[in-house]
Amino acid sequence: MKEIKIGLLGFGTVGAGVVEMLTANAGLLEEHLGATLKLVRIADLDIVSDRGVAVDRELLTTDAEAVVSDPQVDIVVELIGGYEPARTLVLKALKAGKAVVTANKALLALHGRELFAATAAGSGELFFEASVAGGIPLVTSIRENLGGNRVLSLLGILNGTCNYILTRMTDCGESFDAALRDAQEKGFAEADPSFDVDGIDTAHKLAVLMGLCWGRLPDFDQIYVEGISRVSAVDIEFAQRFGYVIKLLAVSKQTEKGVEARVHPTMLPVDHPLASVNGVFNAVELVGDFVGPVTWMGPGAGRRPTASAVVGDILQAARSLLRGGRFRGAPLGYVEGTMASLPVRSMDELKGRFYLRFNVIDCPGVLGRILTALGEKGISIASMIQMQRRADCKVPVVMMTHETREAAIRSALAYIDKDDFVWEPSVFIRIENNL
Amino acid sequence: MKEIKIGLLGFGTVGAGVVEMLTANAGLLEEHLGATLKLVRIADLDIVSDRGVAVDRELLTTDAEAVVSDPQVDIVVELIGGYEPARTLVLKALKAGKAVVTANKALLALHGRELFAATAAGSGELFFEASVAGGIPLVTSIRENLGGNRVLSLLGILNGTCNYILTRMTDCGESFDAALRDAQEKGFAEADPSFDVDGIDTAHKLAVLMGLCWGRLPDFDQIYVEGISRVSAVDIEFAQRFGYVIKLLAVSKQTEKGVEARVHPTMLPVDHPLASVNGVFNAVELVGDFVGPVTWMGPGAGRRPTASAVVGDILQAARSLLRGGRFRGAPLGYVEGTMASLPVRSMDELKGRFYLRFNVIDCPGVLGRILTALGEKGISIASMIQMQRRADCKVPVVMMTHETREAAIRSALAYIDKDDFVWEPSVFIRIENNL
Repeated sequence: MKEIKIGLLGFGTVGAGVVEMLTANAGLLEEHLGATLKLVRIADLDIVSDRGVAVDRELLTTDAEAVVSDPQVDIVVELIGGYEPARTLVLKALKAGKAVVTANKALLALHGRELFAATAAGSGELFFEASVAGGIPLVTSIRENLGGNRVLSLLGILNGTCNYILTRMTDCGESFDAALRDAQEKGFAEADPSFDVDGIDTAHKLAVLMGLCWGRLPDFDQIYVEGISRVSAVDIEFAQRFGYVIKLLAVSKQTEKGVEARVHPTMLPVDHPLASVNGVFNAVELVGDFVGPVTWMGPGAGRRPTASAVVGDILQAARSLLRGGRFRGAPLGYVEGTMASLPVRSMDELKGRFYLRFNVIDCPGVLGRILTALGEKGISIASMIQMQRRADCKVPVVMMTHETREAAIRSALAYIDKDDFVWEPSVFIRIENNL
Repeated sequence: MKEIKIGLLGFGTVGAGVVEMLTANAGLLEEHLGATLKLVRIADLDIVSDRGVAVDRELLTTDAEAVVSDPQVDIVVELIGGYEPARTLVLKALKAGKAVVTANKALLALHGRELFAATAAGSGELFFEASVAGGIPLVTSIRENLGGNRVLSLLGILNGTCNYILTRMTDCGESFDAALRDAQEKGFAEADPSFDVDGIDTAHKLAVLMGLCWGRLPDFDQIYVEGISRVSAVDIEFAQRFGYVIKLLAVSKQTEKGVEARVHPTMLPVDHPLASVNGVFNAVELVGDFVGPVTWMGPGAGRRPTASAVVGDILQAARSLLRGGRFRGAPLGYVEGTMASLPVRSMDELKGRFYLRFNVIDCPGVLGRILTALGEKGISIASMIQMQRRADCKVPVVMMTHETREAAIRSALAYIDKDDFVWEPSVFIRIENNL
């Protein structure tokens, strides 16, 4: 039986999951391919620690370059993560005509065009199903099966750590700090959680999905990114009273004035398809002009689900190699235009509904002054809750607006927050309605 | 620019949608391919009626054979439906080395192996994303991206007509007949609805999905099929009291004793991912040994969503042709074993929980006799509702069992129904729990 030889870069959590899956389901994979997938080299800085999977010690090396330049290696699987040395190694492998499977969203979001150029120049192919939403099959589906659609909008819950923390805050009434500690204890958040909770990881994944939806990547710094660390238990509670939940959402919409690209805490109606996606699960809703709304949901991270996506890509890469040709074509599915960057619309032009929380000293005329200030910016209010005053006279006043421009909200809040009756800066949260 | 030439068989609802999409999104498709998709022939018995899309009259023909044998046609799109002449035309096209795109689940479920053999013999390729769940991208995802997983179970809401009727019965308390009439008035059900409401269409789609999950098709007559026409408003109401909804579910599970294959009304807990899929939407939950549970949801039928899947397949077929080779490989993803049939486990061996409704004359000792009869078959009861008797003393007694064998339920009910106090045959509905 013909052998397809795999070199693995990075023997961490996901790497060990890939080794486990290639071993446990070897027979199944042979039935698929009529060929054997053989792991021939594994590179990692640490070749001593036990990963809980049996591997021949002789496969292990600390020299990742050697794996990439090994002529017997057909498929390079890059699970190192981060920018370097991943970038250099992937470029080298592609230029050597190898198939590369990667789960590295950061690399794709920031250096994607450089990698695409390398596949266009040589005979290498790039597979990256595992880079977004772990085991959920999104990348191939958007590129191939939905490729005939003009994508109208894309909403995603793309970071399990954030979704776990927000779910915990919602279900248990915990503060952000308490929910984060719980996530860290359970292994759902890193010791330094900033990459996840600040929304950067979500934005990386959004960039990749936007590339697939519109055939070209946005410049990463054009994506508006706001994390969840300032989401408070009180806003979650008010959201529930209005019939909403708060999720960290990746949002991209096609508008007449360009494509929106933003990551921020978002209020979703409780009956929205993404509202009930809880815990570490991920989900995406894509609306195409012909298909309408399609929703995917599943495990967005973790050793075994991510291994599933990586091995799925290895399978595709192997099929391509067995047929002796480049099977995949352009990485984003588009033959034309892929090297351009996707223009992104300014946040100031964003139109939508907003949740507003003013933290004021309750004295006569305060509400009138707030409403007047909002009215002067053309902001009209759909519903409002004013709580009974506390002993210290500090009360939150909470409103949901009708559709308005983000610039108007920012300007009105900046004006209101200068007033003496405001004891804490006002809060606004963007609302996403049902289709 | 290079042209890929398409011949369309069947110019009905979906056919017109495909023509509309190829026209409306022609520029987008060119960006994808770097080539033009050109519709060169359209065959239908009716070449007179207006389909609401502009086509050159000269493309139209009543001679489908001529389209299939036209050497200029690269891709044949079969949207005739049914067994013949679809089967003969598809076989002929495949043997002539053409790519065939079909939405025909009936043909695949009953004659799939014959079609697969034709692709293995010649150079033709078969694409059938549109055959299951309309616009939801399932087929490619299961075959390619999830291909490394052992599939443990698959649950699907695969027929929009049935799901609409059951949703209507649940939300409005309507009878099956009233909900069916409503569906017919809205165009969601055919004048002769038996194919949908009897579960046959769902079973066809289940057969295709099973083929993708396990690499070989089941013999169609091995699938247990029960439709929704006997689902009553009273059972829906009792289900709600127990915290369940009733859906027509396609179910397939890998067990030690073979694969289950069944279509029947099923009670799902209200918080199950498929329980909130309402109206004409379809959804599938697949559990793989590595990926865990993945759920898809979207429009499962209709002109534009189905056209989306067909055009996605055309795109893949065109990419394959442009690269001058067979891109897809084995239709079910498996190189080996595809021509065998998948053994299916007998329903008698099915284990699960059941909802039971006994329709009895309320007199002393009746409940005792029922419980004794159940106990003798080893069936134990988890919860029970007995309603207050009506003037005619007829009462429904409703129970939820613990896990038991289907054979035991059938045998106990047959025994109980022979008794004089039973005024209407007992009802049982299978329960599917959360993972």
